[in-house]
Amino acid sequence: MRLIFLGTGAGVPSRARGVASLALDLGGPVWLFDAGEGAQVQLMRTGLSARRIRRVFITHLHGDHLFGLPGLLSTRSFQTARDPLALYGPPGLDEFVTTALRLSGTHLDYPLDITEIADHQTLFHADGFTVSTRLLAHGVPSFGYRLAEDDRPGALRAERVADLGVTPGPWLAALKAGTSVTLPDGRTIDGRDLIGPARPGRTLAITGDTGPTPATIDLARGADVLVHESTYAGAEADLAARYGHSTCTDAARIAAQAGVGTLLLTHLSARYDEAATAALEAEARAIFPATHAMSDLATHRVPRRDVTPEAATSG
Amino acid sequence: MRLIFLGTGAGVPSRARGVASLALDLGGPVWLFDAGEGAQVQLMRTGLSARRIRRVFITHLHGDHLFGLPGLLSTRSFQTARDPLALYGPPGLDEFVTTALRLSGTHLDYPLDITEIADHQTLFHADGFTVSTRLLAHGVPSFGYRLAEDDRPGALRAERVADLGVTPGPWLAALKAGTSVTLPDGRTIDGRDLIGPARPGRTLAITGDTGPTPATIDLARGADVLVHESTYAGAEADLAARYGHSTCTDAARIAAQAGVGTLLLTHLSARYDEAATAALEAEARAIFPATHAMSDLATHRVPRRDVTPEAATSG
Repeated sequence: MRLIFLGTGAGVPSRARGVASLALDLGGPVWLFDAGEGAQVQLMRTGLSARRIRRVFITHLHGDHLFGLPGLLSTRSFQTARDPLALYGPPGLDEFVTTALRLSGTHLDYPLDITEIADHQTLFHADGFTVSTRLLAHGVPSFGYRLAEDDRPGALRAERVADLGVTPGPWLAALKAGTSVTLPDGRTIDGRDLIGPARPGRTLAITGDTGPTPATIDLARGADVLVHESTYAGAEADLAARYGHSTCTDAARIAAQAGVGTLLLTHLSARYDEAATAALEAEARAIFPATHAMSDLATHRVPRRDVTPEAATSG
Repeated sequence: MRLIFLGTGAGVPSRARGVASLALDLGGPVWLFDAGEGAQVQLMRTGLSARRIRRVFITHLHGDHLFGLPGLLSTRSFQTARDPLALYGPPGLDEFVTTALRLSGTHLDYPLDITEIADHQTLFHADGFTVSTRLLAHGVPSFGYRLAEDDRPGALRAERVADLGVTPGPWLAALKAGTSVTLPDGRTIDGRDLIGPARPGRTLAITGDTGPTPATIDLARGADVLVHESTYAGAEADLAARYGHSTCTDAARIAAQAGVGTLLLTHLSARYDEAATAALEAEARAIFPATHAMSDLATHRVPRRDVTPEAATSG
């Protein structure tokens, strides 16, 4: 599982940063969060095909998060995608998309399923995740998404298998799944006695634009990764408040209060060059050390947080 | 006067070519023809500010010519443009733009004037140009634009001034403008006797997507420059006909029949790499030698076609 930042700028594209879009590569399917203008071109640069996108989540309808969506939907069809695409976002998303497609004469060769979302909504439990929403604070309805991966069954405990003298065979898979099995030697063994505790899935919290709000703390509580906007440096708190945005220190405080593992900063104003961005990152790290300011096409891997040593090395 | 090709691809962006957009730099104002996704980013790369754009002409509403428009309008406002912007295009353009701006909460800090166009329409006579339309042949309403620059008065003929013994003075400007002037020595002289023939303005014909059609020949008759789509090479005439597009040989024949000065090919399918594009250009040149296949960010200067030798060196 890896996050690929397609655009990390704020408001308008600049030479350094495109507007907002973030891909979550789940290995097979790809999910997209926001689709600012140019998202499909950035996606092409990562080598990911638009065909692999199965779900698109829009945080809010501001143009820098939205205007790349019609082109992306169209290109996905051009690339002969036939799998359905699920699209989630605030009320108005359906009208925007259907109007753009209708007036441009764009026919999609795949089913498009649009869900307009509300606060505290569980969108689905599928593809190994439960995804739910929280309304954040940005002037227009702006949502954060919490992605809670399903827990995985515990690992087979090799020493218990040896103790019980269970020999290799097709019954091992059934035992590993935690079911009860009668062995060839007549013994009945409960698989649950052979496996360790369930291994917790990963949790991501992904926000679009928002000022600092307790809703984000709720959304992100205990998450492995929080993606949070950081339009401004700490000194620009007035600007941030005026426009419903966050500073890097706002984001860091939220991350600390939510107790997340890692904070990834995005949606950075074009006023910050490379040096200023490093300073902004350092400012956030003074509050929340595990902070990274992301750049276009940067990738962040999200390792499994398995409790067993052998699995902790994976990811 | 120069044409700057912002995007020269067809249908979807590729690594080599962005989707359709073309800037006409008139020195002060800039006019834009089509605004496919990414047009504003390409414009930024040319060093032209979106603030300078005063008119945008959309040829047709297919997404690869249109989906960059809302972002461009928004960025122009962000760049503190306050001059009005005139927008021209087929019926449906107003609904597309106003829906995108409304749902995205985009407020423009300048007046936006949208004109939905028809066939054989003279859009305006202003800024030194008369601009008119022709409906072309592309399945959906697709228009070509003819830009006829105003003629300039003839140049002052130095030998006639010397023959008449007209001395330098403020009256020379009036004579040069072709008015009648009474000199300090009492003589009345008609300026029209001192100036050469009017110098014809330049004419450009700019099309979006179209199959070969007599309407383009009408539109482009005698133009200095014809910008014509060339989605396919000559061998793909069947594909071109099926999708309402032109081959390079279609475009070359149109240019020859219209008697234009230069043919610029754009809207090239991503299937043509650099070598294949050169072959396609050569194929067109066999029919119409003054042909150039354009690439992204390529510039074409349009020199004045003055009849007087001193002016012919300008441009």
